[in-house]
Amino acid sequence: MRKTHTAGALRATDEGKSVILAGWVHRRRDFGGLIFVDLRDRYGMTQITLDPQRVPAEVFKAVEGIRAEYVIEVEGTVHLRPEKMRNPKLATGDVEVFATKVIIHNAAKVPPFPIDTDGTDVDENLRLKYRYLDLRRERMARNLTLRHKLIKHMRDYMDRNGFIEVETPILFKSTPEGAREYLVPSRVHPGEFYALPQSPQQLKQLLMVGGIERYFQIARCFRDEDQRADRQPEFTQLDVEMSFVDRDDVMALIETMLVQFTTEQAALHGKRLLYTPFRRLTFAEAMGRYGNDKPDLRFGMEIFDVTVATRDSQFAVFAGAPGVRGIVAPGCAAYTRKQTDELIEFARKEGAKGLVVLHHDPEGIRGSGAGAKLSEAEKAALIAAGGSKPGDLLLLVADAEGIALNALGKLRVEMGTRLKLADPNVLAFAWVVDFPMFTWDKDDSRWVPNHHLFTAPRDEDLDKFETNPGEVKGKQYDLVCNGYEAGGGSIRIHRRDVQLRVMSLLGLSLEEAYKKFGHMLDAFEYGAPPHGGIAPGVDRLAMLFAGEPNIREVIAFPKNQQAADVMLGIPSAATDKQLKELSVSVTL
Amino acid sequence: MRKTHTAGALRATDEGKSVILAGWVHRRRDFGGLIFVDLRDRYGMTQITLDPQRVPAEVFKAVEGIRAEYVIEVEGTVHLRPEKMRNPKLATGDVEVFATKVIIHNAAKVPPFPIDTDGTDVDENLRLKYRYLDLRRERMARNLTLRHKLIKHMRDYMDRNGFIEVETPILFKSTPEGAREYLVPSRVHPGEFYALPQSPQQLKQLLMVGGIERYFQIARCFRDEDQRADRQPEFTQLDVEMSFVDRDDVMALIETMLVQFTTEQAALHGKRLLYTPFRRLTFAEAMGRYGNDKPDLRFGMEIFDVTVATRDSQFAVFAGAPGVRGIVAPGCAAYTRKQTDELIEFARKEGAKGLVVLHHDPEGIRGSGAGAKLSEAEKAALIAAGGSKPGDLLLLVADAEGIALNALGKLRVEMGTRLKLADPNVLAFAWVVDFPMFTWDKDDSRWVPNHHLFTAPRDEDLDKFETNPGEVKGKQYDLVCNGYEAGGGSIRIHRRDVQLRVMSLLGLSLEEAYKKFGHMLDAFEYGAPPHGGIAPGVDRLAMLFAGEPNIREVIAFPKNQQAADVMLGIPSAATDKQLKELSVSVTL
Repeated sequence: MRKTHTAGALRATDEGKSVILAGWVHRRRDFGGLIFVDLRDRYGMTQITLDPQRVPAEVFKAVEGIRAEYVIEVEGTVHLRPEKMRNPKLATGDVEVFATKVIIHNAAKVPPFPIDTDGTDVDENLRLKYRYLDLRRERMARNLTLRHKLIKHMRDYMDRNGFIEVETPILFKSTPEGAREYLVPSRVHPGEFYALPQSPQQLKQLLMVGGIERYFQIARCFRDEDQRADRQPEFTQLDVEMSFVDRDDVMALIETMLVQFTTEQAALHGKRLLYTPFRRLTFAEAMGRYGNDKPDLRFGMEIFDVTVATRDSQFAVFAGAPGVRGIVAPGCAAYTRKQTDELIEFARKEGAKGLVVLHHDPEGIRGSGAGAKLSEAEKAALIAAGGSKPGDLLLLVADAEGIALNALGKLRVEMGTRLKLADPNVLAFAWVVDFPMFTWDKDDSRWVPNHHLFTAPRDEDLDKFETNPGEVKGKQYDLVCNGYEAGGGSIRIHRRDVQLRVMSLLGLSLEEAYKKFGHMLDAFEYGAPPHGGIAPGVDRLAMLFAGEPNIREVIAFPKNQQAADVMLGIPSAATDKQLKELSVSVTL
Repeated sequence: MRKTHTAGALRATDEGKSVILAGWVHRRRDFGGLIFVDLRDRYGMTQITLDPQRVPAEVFKAVEGIRAEYVIEVEGTVHLRPEKMRNPKLATGDVEVFATKVIIHNAAKVPPFPIDTDGTDVDENLRLKYRYLDLRRERMARNLTLRHKLIKHMRDYMDRNGFIEVETPILFKSTPEGAREYLVPSRVHPGEFYALPQSPQQLKQLLMVGGIERYFQIARCFRDEDQRADRQPEFTQLDVEMSFVDRDDVMALIETMLVQFTTEQAALHGKRLLYTPFRRLTFAEAMGRYGNDKPDLRFGMEIFDVTVATRDSQFAVFAGAPGVRGIVAPGCAAYTRKQTDELIEFARKEGAKGLVVLHHDPEGIRGSGAGAKLSEAEKAALIAAGGSKPGDLLLLVADAEGIALNALGKLRVEMGTRLKLADPNVLAFAWVVDFPMFTWDKDDSRWVPNHHLFTAPRDEDLDKFETNPGEVKGKQYDLVCNGYEAGGGSIRIHRRDVQLRVMSLLGLSLEEAYKKFGHMLDAFEYGAPPHGGIAPGVDRLAMLFAGEPNIREVIAFPKNQQAADVMLGIPSAATDKQLKELSVSVTL
């Protein structure tokens, strides 16, 4: 070990010590015949002082050539800085190291962007192309450290609770039921393929059949989907499965883990929890009040329903509508026509026929169209239902329930962002439960699972399978936070007959069911215990705790939005030899 | 949580408690009108007693139908067993639970093999096809728990030492320099491919350039090689990289980690270390004394060299040979002609022209061919060099050094196994250092790296690059144990000019070097620190600590020797839709 100390370690009490530091030149200044170097490493920064009287001439001369990001090693003695030269903002600000020897390990070209900023002003593809420089930012080092601590906490917590980590294979089976998969050609079995797993779902269930009882894994998962701001081709989840448990056991396990992390590592992330215990909402409640199954609960602005009060309205839009719902945007009564037109356009893009905008003035609700036609009773009902106050703006959608809730849910998020209603230092964790088990896919004219086909139905809903699948609720629970899904879980089916009924409802023939999931159906015949689990997203949680706007900021080497790594230059062409060995060819 | 206790928890002091247990029926016995059920879970076994007087008639009737591997849940009361019925071999052997309620969660067909054995008598493909049953064996549960604890120890240790775990991507770049790779077609970039990483080597070096300084990861790695007993398509390594270190820093780090694990978890694995500190051998020493760069040091039987003493032998085979080397097989002088012929054949298969076998009798060395022709001085030299005693068998190869050392090294292992010379409860860790950096590949007529092309040469050998590449030694260190390589590491090149000299020596043009490794060469220009690392194999270490003969026994869902998973039925055909989306087709 060359270093005796890190660049963040030295204090006034180290005065007089002989030390060796090594790291990067953060800044070099020449002043009054002396050279000052701010030496940086992962742990901090220390001022090195080079005095031509104290270092050999050739060393001083060499140091005159160094620039930012050179890698150097310095031997020297710790001195107290003169009183007025001390820097209280720097942990090592009381001292400087008088160099006696300097080794230049490596030179550095001028970096393509500054690295003493947070990088928000740099084009992201440029940051990713030089990720090895981008990672030198304090922000990135902090994010990667936070992620490490989060994962460490998860592992320690699961271990303390009797779980064992089991690694499941990455070379897995294609099950084209779910998201699009990455395939891997087999050389040994020409014409055949592995698939990269969307999650270890099936294997962790088989571990339960295998008697492991308490399993976890920090698992890499893959989805070949078109990229969005918070999606990556590969992502990481805390994968958990337990036997002999009910829904509340799994939720309590994860909730305690997150509460402990928030408390114990507060110095690292500075976040606090809005709800302890975590809030709990049914799916119906989340949709009805927030128009979203992963609502941002850091602010109110709940959706209200004035369908009954406006049923006989003189305002034709309300009277003729299947329902009237709205939200109140606080303090926005002064919005101009241009601004309200923007909101109307926003609602239309989200599928609503239109948006009724009412200004709540000191005199009451006004408005040229609706405002003039609404009765005083209707206005009073609106104000009461929305809790509107003078100065607020009412945004109303008269449309079918699903359309209205979606549009208002999106408007709520938009207005919350514009008005900065969500405290960035708060994490509003909640559980959403009682999801419908199946959704009718109009395009394909078939039922599709809302979660996945291994989720168990509520026992009391088993009878509705054949009569009313839309009413069947699953034993599913989603962890949500600040408008994001942070993890989904469920109690699973552990009986072959129930699993086959679900598969049949989803349109799988017995033959198809066995071809795709025969290993699961077979396993259920050999003593499968009741079991359930969950998979909190590690990238998402790290992003939330770090207060970052997207998961790429908490991933060392993310792909860009075209699923490419511009630093490595991948994906890239394969050689003919490689393709021949794998018995595949490219068809463009 | 349904259970109040695990099946391994109850003791005499729990007498009188109301409990709920759940798990698998290990055995059911009917005796004297009572039913006894051994209830098993991951934690142990508890006897359940069903008395028709105490349980409702329908419960008793239902229980009469249960068989081994049914999943049941039992409510009942803890009773002390009658004195003579206690079972001191079972942790819960002092008690039984008198059931008052039994729920049958799932039935079970008769398993295809017994699971109360260690499974060695069961065909391995059958074990793997029903892995979810195979995992219920005590042996497999113990192995997976050991692996979990080993990995937990590694992570805790690395964290304590200031390392942060950074996840690197699985969708990586093809670098066809090394082993054969798995490719993944890109849908978004038709005709282009990702590759699954052989190791995070390049990315961890880039993390060092990024200033992380101390990185680790329990990393999944992939190699599309033909399978051997101890190889898998995917494997796990503790991947480590550090900046500003020398060889001894990395070795000390890993050595302390393993010593601590051996000591702290002795109850789990029962192994002890033969050498603390670990033994250290040069490559030349390992080859010369053991004919192997990963020698099993649990026993002696070292190779001796009598080239000088036999140079003028009357025995033509010795006199004409470039060298004469041998080993002594203790106590094998009574080997028959048939047995010695087998050994000769063994040596021939390993490339030797032949094997000279000499019996060391009470009267001295005899033998029809060589024995009769060797002078007394030669015989004395042989006995002295090999430390042979009456009753031993001398096995000699007269051949070129490389051929002789290889054949004798293999013979040494063979005889060690036959004679059971290696204590199965001992781990003989050692470091092998001072490897040659390059090997001449006769077939391709070019130099190839002995480790990989990022390993740094010894500083004093830089000048031999162009004049005598075979003499250049690398800053490489291998961790070996009981005849296996348990991990390889090196100090890396951190300067672009040195890296380019290595690439040039290996036959890469500047253009090729940049096409394949441009990201590395670029990174070295922006302030790369001196760095090095290592990657101990997790599967291999878990196997060694578990005392298992192959790594499949410490992997939950391994592939078989044809890289297939017979439980999942993979690899398997892809659909036309999948292949079309990926712009590839199968060419058989």
